[in-house]
Amino acid sequence: MAKINVVVAGASGKMGSEALRMIKKHQDLCLVGCVDLHHKGMKVKEIEGLPDFDAIFYDDINQCLDEVEADVLIDLTSPKVGFKHAKAALLHDVRPVVGTTGFTAEELEELTQLSKEREVGAVIAPNFAMGAVLMMQFAKQAAKYFPDVEIIEKHHDQKLDAPSGTAVKTAELIQDTRKQKSQGHPDEHETIDGARGADFDGMRIHSVRLPGLVAHQEVIFGGPGENFTLKHDSFHRESFMSGIKFAIDRVVKLDYLVYGLEHLMMD
Amino acid sequence: MAKINVVVAGASGKMGSEALRMIKKHQDLCLVGCVDLHHKGMKVKEIEGLPDFDAIFYDDINQCLDEVEADVLIDLTSPKVGFKHAKAALLHDVRPVVGTTGFTAEELEELTQLSKEREVGAVIAPNFAMGAVLMMQFAKQAAKYFPDVEIIEKHHDQKLDAPSGTAVKTAELIQDTRKQKSQGHPDEHETIDGARGADFDGMRIHSVRLPGLVAHQEVIFGGPGENFTLKHDSFHRESFMSGIKFAIDRVVKLDYLVYGLEHLMMD
Amino acid sequence: MAKINVVVAGASGKMGSEALRMIKKHQDLCLVGCVDLHHKGMKVKEIEGLPDFDAIFYDDINQCLDEVEADVLIDLTSPKVGFKHAKAALLHDVRPVVGTTGFTAEELEELTQLSKEREVGAVIAPNFAMGAVLMMQFAKQAAKYFPDVEIIEKHHDQKLDAPSGTAVKTAELIQDTRKQKSQGHPDEHETIDGARGADFDGMRIHSVRLPGLVAHQEVIFGGPGENFTLKHDSFHRESFMSGIKFAIDRVVKLDYLVYGLEHLMMD
Amino acid sequence: MAKINVVVAGASGKMGSEALRMIKKHQDLCLVGCVDLHHKGMKVKEIEGLPDFDAIFYDDINQCLDEVEADVLIDLTSPKVGFKHAKAALLHDVRPVVGTTGFTAEELEELTQLSKEREVGAVIAPNFAMGAVLMMQFAKQAAKYFPDVEIIEKHHDQKLDAPSGTAVKTAELIQDTRKQKSQGHPDEHETIDGARGADFDGMRIHSVRLPGLVAHQEVIFGGPGENFTLKHDSFHRESFMSGIKFAIDRVVKLDYLVYGLEHLMMD
Repeated sequence: MAKINVVVAGASGKMGSEALRMIKKHQDLCLVGCVDLHHKGMKVKEIEGLPDFDAIFYDDINQCLDEVEADVLIDLTSPKVGFKHAKAALLHDVRPVVGTTGFTAEELEELTQLSKEREVGAVIAPNFAMGAVLMMQFAKQAAKYFPDVEIIEKHHDQKLDAPSGTAVKTAELIQDTRKQKSQGHPDEHETIDGARGADFDGMRIHSVRLPGLVAHQEVIFGGPGENFTLKHDSFHRESFMSGIKFAIDRVVKLDYLVYGLEHLMMD
Repeated sequence: MAKINVVVAGASGKMGSEALRMIKKHQDLCLVGCVDLHHKGMKVKEIEGLPDFDAIFYDDINQCLDEVEADVLIDLTSPKVGFKHAKAALLHDVRPVVGTTGFTAEELEELTQLSKEREVGAVIAPNFAMGAVLMMQFAKQAAKYFPDVEIIEKHHDQKLDAPSGTAVKTAELIQDTRKQKSQGHPDEHETIDGARGADFDGMRIHSVRLPGLVAHQEVIFGGPGENFTLKHDSFHRESFMSGIKFAIDRVVKLDYLVYGLEHLMMD
Repeated sequence: MAKINVVVAGASGKMGSEALRMIKKHQDLCLVGCVDLHHKGMKVKEIEGLPDFDAIFYDDINQCLDEVEADVLIDLTSPKVGFKHAKAALLHDVRPVVGTTGFTAEELEELTQLSKEREVGAVIAPNFAMGAVLMMQFAKQAAKYFPDVEIIEKHHDQKLDAPSGTAVKTAELIQDTRKQKSQGHPDEHETIDGARGADFDGMRIHSVRLPGLVAHQEVIFGGPGENFTLKHDSFHRESFMSGIKFAIDRVVKLDYLVYGLEHLMMD
Repeated sequence: MAKINVVVAGASGKMGSEALRMIKKHQDLCLVGCVDLHHKGMKVKEIEGLPDFDAIFYDDINQCLDEVEADVLIDLTSPKVGFKHAKAALLHDVRPVVGTTGFTAEELEELTQLSKEREVGAVIAPNFAMGAVLMMQFAKQAAKYFPDVEIIEKHHDQKLDAPSGTAVKTAELIQDTRKQKSQGHPDEHETIDGARGADFDGMRIHSVRLPGLVAHQEVIFGGPGENFTLKHDSFHRESFMSGIKFAIDRVVKLDYLVYGLEHLMMD
């Protein structure tokens, strides 16, 4: 079977270098180029800490896609350049797999149309950790049977926002299927403010911040005499990589844009 | 909406008395009779520890179903009488919801045919704990994405068999969808026999037995940089009751037999 | 070795009946009487749900202690009668083991003096679950090394106060040894109020309330690259019993009053 | 307060480079030299991935300790050179803090004597993760009250031995204080070999190996109606660093050798 030729944008970044290591582990993938602000003209293997690849660094997406035979672009950069990269890829009939988040609705709409017109598949996902996607989708299904649910998310203590985006997204998915109810005893009272956590549609979300933690979330459903818990632990940013590989394997068979890994996994 | 009239077989047993308490909590259910070896002719409320019901105890299923207007029979007895009760119910056009396990294949086939002929629904389930059913069904789905999985089941220390039936059933469901592989490092070795647990199709199952525990199971999927865990805690036999209520609400709309709560929940 | 003769006050209550079952399991204990508002003059075995004992029920502590040869009184009643019972026991040179909480400082002082004067030991403890005592005492020790700590306590959804008394008590013990610091990123912000839980001396306490849960607490210490967690699960009120037995075995060798099981365990 | 001058042996290794980053974070420490097989004569800051220090690399411990004013040597190398380094340090009145394991009894004895003679403190510890040390020491104490205990250790799936060294060490410590008993029901049976894990003195140890995991251990004590759990999660090798800092702060006040961080922490 022919290898899938891959270009990585943001290759010298933390997530980008993980993508290079992932490609190295898969015989069916072949790195044909990198796009980055740094290292223009250098071979990947010449850079300390990056795997042994001969592919070279470009600082311009169009020049790169003009010069190399790519099937897929993995984009792990920032919203600012991520959109430009995805658009350039589609215009080169190269399928973008984009882990960068923060696109505007207009940008997403433009990419969706372009993908359909050129019949070139694309995948954009805020979360490529397959365990996290399963947790969120199963939470949505479980909420039909268990209206009582609380979410505990735990992160390292440098995280600023609480609750985390994943926790709010999970609560939103639960809200779609859960019979709305305000949980806990009607007369319950906090002897210290905040003990019962954040109230989201009658559910509660608790945010733990401690050194040592990475990114962890538990969704706990309670029923008479039982608890059912969904838990995702992301120990390392490598947790995105199997989801990216999963998306690469499918995007080559798509001719439209898919937003959200869950649609590739659950549909 | 008219109440669902319910007869409970095995009402003075541990699980049966839980069913009576569950019925007491639901306005849409009405207890019209009990079948049991004990207390013939007594009202439920006359027996210490049972809820305040006027329904009376019979020691014969047919006499009971002849005399009371029942829609549903909840059977929480033993395989020996469970089959007889389910059959009698179907012959009275009463829908059996059976938590008793251990029927032979022939008995199940006979009940399935009878249910179809009389177009009277029936539900038989080895496990009515909805959280346990979700855990097992989600494990089957998750195994498509995570071939590396280990099961840890924990029970009170009076349990005889290891691994538990639920753990083996879960492993069998995972086996259906999981890419078979022998897990752990090829050169791993046990310095003390048994450390790596039971080998089931290359997966590992670990059985913990300790006083204080009730019935708990974790299914842990591992991928690069992440873990995804499904966990079910049964703290009390009351955990069966929401599943039994769920089955009652659906069996009144069925005209065939369903084996396994998952088919009511997931289909 | 001579058996320890025990009287149980509050014997027909939920906790009292557990104490009777505990006594039944221990060859070195002998039930010689019960004190309760109910069942005056009846034998324990004549009451449905209570174990097979010939000891009889009294409704007056002094009459009971006058008529039976008791070494130890287990009191599992209410603050109102608990104090009267403990005092009567000491005056009869019977050692009280009291699980009832809510005594005033004056009442405790009076019992302490009486115990010293008569050189008759006594044990009063708000929490007889040995696992809970270990969790709290170890948390106090661990806090010397890990100033970053968060507490997650989980209870059934009929509990009114949040955080739980045990969580606050644990935080107070940690406060004694922990280097005070405000945890989490200085610029962290709650996008939904309460997400970060209750702030106690810079630590955070989170209260989960769900059906199915009983009483559970985790104390999580975070340090660079590691977490250390202490967890106590009380699945059933039986969890008090090994602590009560532990106290009985020691109170017979004491000639003063000890407040708090930890002093018997850790000193 | 004067800074503590530190030399790091094995500085370019994974653990050694963590030690450099730890030193960078502490104002009261000052890096004065590094010993390694590589980078002789180079400044630490000249090596990609290492922090900004001017201290230089030596390939000989004696030359290094002759030329720099060191108070403490951190040795994170291998048993072969670790012993030579520790001895050289003591002979230079420099206090060794050694994370390297695998010394022979004779080597330990020689270092102990040398340390006493020269009245120069030293600390050797197989495990510098303070959370792991607390887990093991608290397990030893808890076993007095809970003879029923099972250990679940979870590691990445490249680990060869099962159970882990830490699990066996924990079981040995428990064995010292636990009333020996064979756990589980006397008639329990494995329907699949190994389900009940490794039998160590009647306790059970279970080893989970999954991708994504790092190094995690739970010690679960069971009693009637309750469980008490001690859990240590090492997410990253950085977990050794607070223990090494803890040892540095104390070794400067010692005039003898301490083997095992617990003796600095618990005594």
